[in-house]
Amino acid sequence: MTILERQDDGAIARLTMNQPEKLNALSDGMLDALQTTLDEIAEDNSTRVVTLAGEGKAFCAGHDLKEMTQGRQAEDGGKAYFADLFSRCSKLMRTIRDLPQPVIALPHGIATAAGCQLVATCDLAVAATGTRFGVNGVNIGLFCSTPMVALSRNIPRKQAFEMLTTGEFIETDRAIELGLINRAVPHDGLHAAGDDLAHTIAAKLGAAVKIGKQAFYKQLEMGLDDAYAFTGEVMVENMMWRDTEEGISAFIEKRTPEWKQD
Amino acid sequence: MTILERQDDGAIARLTMNQPEKLNALSDGMLDALQTTLDEIAEDNSTRVVTLAGEGKAFCAGHDLKEMTQGRQAEDGGKAYFADLFSRCSKLMRTIRDLPQPVIALPHGIATAAGCQLVATCDLAVAATGTRFGVNGVNIGLFCSTPMVALSRNIPRKQAFEMLTTGEFIETDRAIELGLINRAVPHDGLHAAGDDLAHTIAAKLGAAVKIGKQAFYKQLEMGLDDAYAFTGEVMVENMMWRDTEEGISAFIEKRTPEWKQD
Amino acid sequence: MTILERQDDGAIARLTMNQPEKLNALSDGMLDALQTTLDEIAEDNSTRVVTLAGEGKAFCAGHDLKEMTQGRQAEDGGKAYFADLFSRCSKLMRTIRDLPQPVIALPHGIATAAGCQLVATCDLAVAATGTRFGVNGVNIGLFCSTPMVALSRNIPRKQAFEMLTTGEFIETDRAIELGLINRAVPHDGLHAAGDDLAHTIAAKLGAAVKIGKQAFYKQLEMGLDDAYAFTGEVMVENMMWRDTEEGISAFIEKRTPEWKQD
Repeated sequence: MTILERQDDGAIARLTMNQPEKLNALSDGMLDALQTTLDEIAEDNSTRVVTLAGEGKAFCAGHDLKEMTQGRQAEDGGKAYFADLFSRCSKLMRTIRDLPQPVIALPHGIATAAGCQLVATCDLAVAATGTRFGVNGVNIGLFCSTPMVALSRNIPRKQAFEMLTTGEFIETDRAIELGLINRAVPHDGLHAAGDDLAHTIAAKLGAAVKIGKQAFYKQLEMGLDDAYAFTGEVMVENMMWRDTEEGISAFIEKRTPEWKQD
Repeated sequence: MTILERQDDGAIARLTMNQPEKLNALSDGMLDALQTTLDEIAEDNSTRVVTLAGEGKAFCAGHDLKEMTQGRQAEDGGKAYFADLFSRCSKLMRTIRDLPQPVIALPHGIATAAGCQLVATCDLAVAATGTRFGVNGVNIGLFCSTPMVALSRNIPRKQAFEMLTTGEFIETDRAIELGLINRAVPHDGLHAAGDDLAHTIAAKLGAAVKIGKQAFYKQLEMGLDDAYAFTGEVMVENMMWRDTEEGISAFIEKRTPEWKQD
Repeated sequence: MTILERQDDGAIARLTMNQPEKLNALSDGMLDALQTTLDEIAEDNSTRVVTLAGEGKAFCAGHDLKEMTQGRQAEDGGKAYFADLFSRCSKLMRTIRDLPQPVIALPHGIATAAGCQLVATCDLAVAATGTRFGVNGVNIGLFCSTPMVALSRNIPRKQAFEMLTTGEFIETDRAIELGLINRAVPHDGLHAAGDDLAHTIAAKLGAAVKIGKQAFYKQLEMGLDDAYAFTGEVMVENMMWRDTEEGISAFIEKRTPEWKQD
């Protein structure tokens, strides 16, 4: 048994963080396992959607504070270790954004600090009803500065600022209103709901989802004119694919497309 | 009868896409008619607000897939035609943004792909209750990459990503929650509601609405400090107008301003 | 009695605009008083949170139109005065953003034009139920171009555009939905609610809130990769503080941290 389980079901890769005794904290081991597995998935053309869940009582409780405290033993008081740790953590978040496949977070229990960042970073999120989300590092004197990068790009700024400075949790109803998650379902239906959403997306033309996801985050950081110039090129490339020609022909002829997914 | 009807009512120009047999798709003809008409309106000082509606069962169903398929007959498989098509479509969207006059979309039925982009691009939108919005190109293998430029600047990113990758529709209640439209009214009151909103804006000082609209989109793409420097200059210019002096005097004297709209 | 009262209560500085006969307009005097007081607070390490309220019927009714009209008497028709006025007003807004301490707006009655901008600019806002918010300069021919800088970074763009071009007010329920304010409470509980929120934040490690607030607005204007590189450095700095070490140790040992706030 590893701390990150991967179960493949056709085009879907189901990842489960499995260190419940640590509330699936992003320990050095968990960061490494996630990074390695996602790097593999990035190269894996048979996987079209990824889901990410947690075993035990919590989805993910952020960084591993005990490991961080041990890191202080170094001569520099942990400075180099912390710099490396946050660099690895941010690399993981950028890897999720850059992954060709959409990643669906399936939080339950709690998702705090870097665990909340993980939810915000995933392309989509379906939560168990009652999941509590927080960026509560401020309670222990460590402001959630890297988590806020993802959070503040998902929800309005006053609401992000409130979560960051009060350390208070929000639950699923509020998380839906604010845009942090897509929807909530009862806990016993969470994995089925995740699979449903994953299958819906996996049934699309994989190359179209891939080119679309990559363009999505790129254009978000551009001015409108550049964004149109860039996405116009993406549309032309997409139009030239045989599978897209078949998709459009099938639509006109009112039949199901036969994609070669080439 | 043309494919785009223009009816002027004082300061309001009502545009109606009128190719119901194509669900008002943005065909070459429709794009050309919209571009030409908006270019005329941009120069037309008597028009202060534009409304944009669709005749028939749908507001607009996106690109004209039959025309696009015909475009494939060219020696290059349509590549040059597609590049030109998306360029013309994006130019239309930028023209709406740059138009001195606010444009109010009045969607009903369905607004899909580039039709949903059109709603997202207009400055304001009042929809018929029950209108369905989607960026569902992914269903036929053509990711809605240009529509997402407008969509992702109107609604939160996880919700935009879900629409783009699942191809699923949202209805008016959800569109209001997400910020895609301003409000919804029963279909038989749609044009009256559009006219009401248009009249409200047309009753303002036209030059103020114009300078404000132009500054609105410009400052959105700036950092906060630059945005303040820029809009500060806009405010000074606005203050120096005789009509603004009259507006402020009338307010202080508790009377209705007499604007020359010069 | 001054036009801006400051009352200190431990780590909380309560500011109250006190020119009710002018509806607490941002007159030359009020701008100066706010700027001077905030500049003092920026240097005051004993203050950890600021609240900002208004005396009388309104929180703040925007610029002082009578003063602005008097400004027209100058040889240049007021141009230099207006440029200076908007520059001072924008400087005040940037000062609130740059202030090390979070600022909580406590609007009641009305918050219009630059008064609405003030609410949007503060880090947090708790309003009296029924407070009306508007950027209604367009009604008198003066588009709220500087207020929209703050407003359009708080609420979705179509809803901001509607407020700016119609001049119509929204009330607290809608302001919460849109993200303009954090919450609303009955008017007679407004100051208690503001104090509660202020005390919650003041109980955190002040240095963490300070470094976090400053990083919050900086990273918002960066692309994602730069934002992570920057906030990673902030996290390392934060980790090296003795009080943060104590906060983390206390958490692991399940006790209350003893911060020196050094």
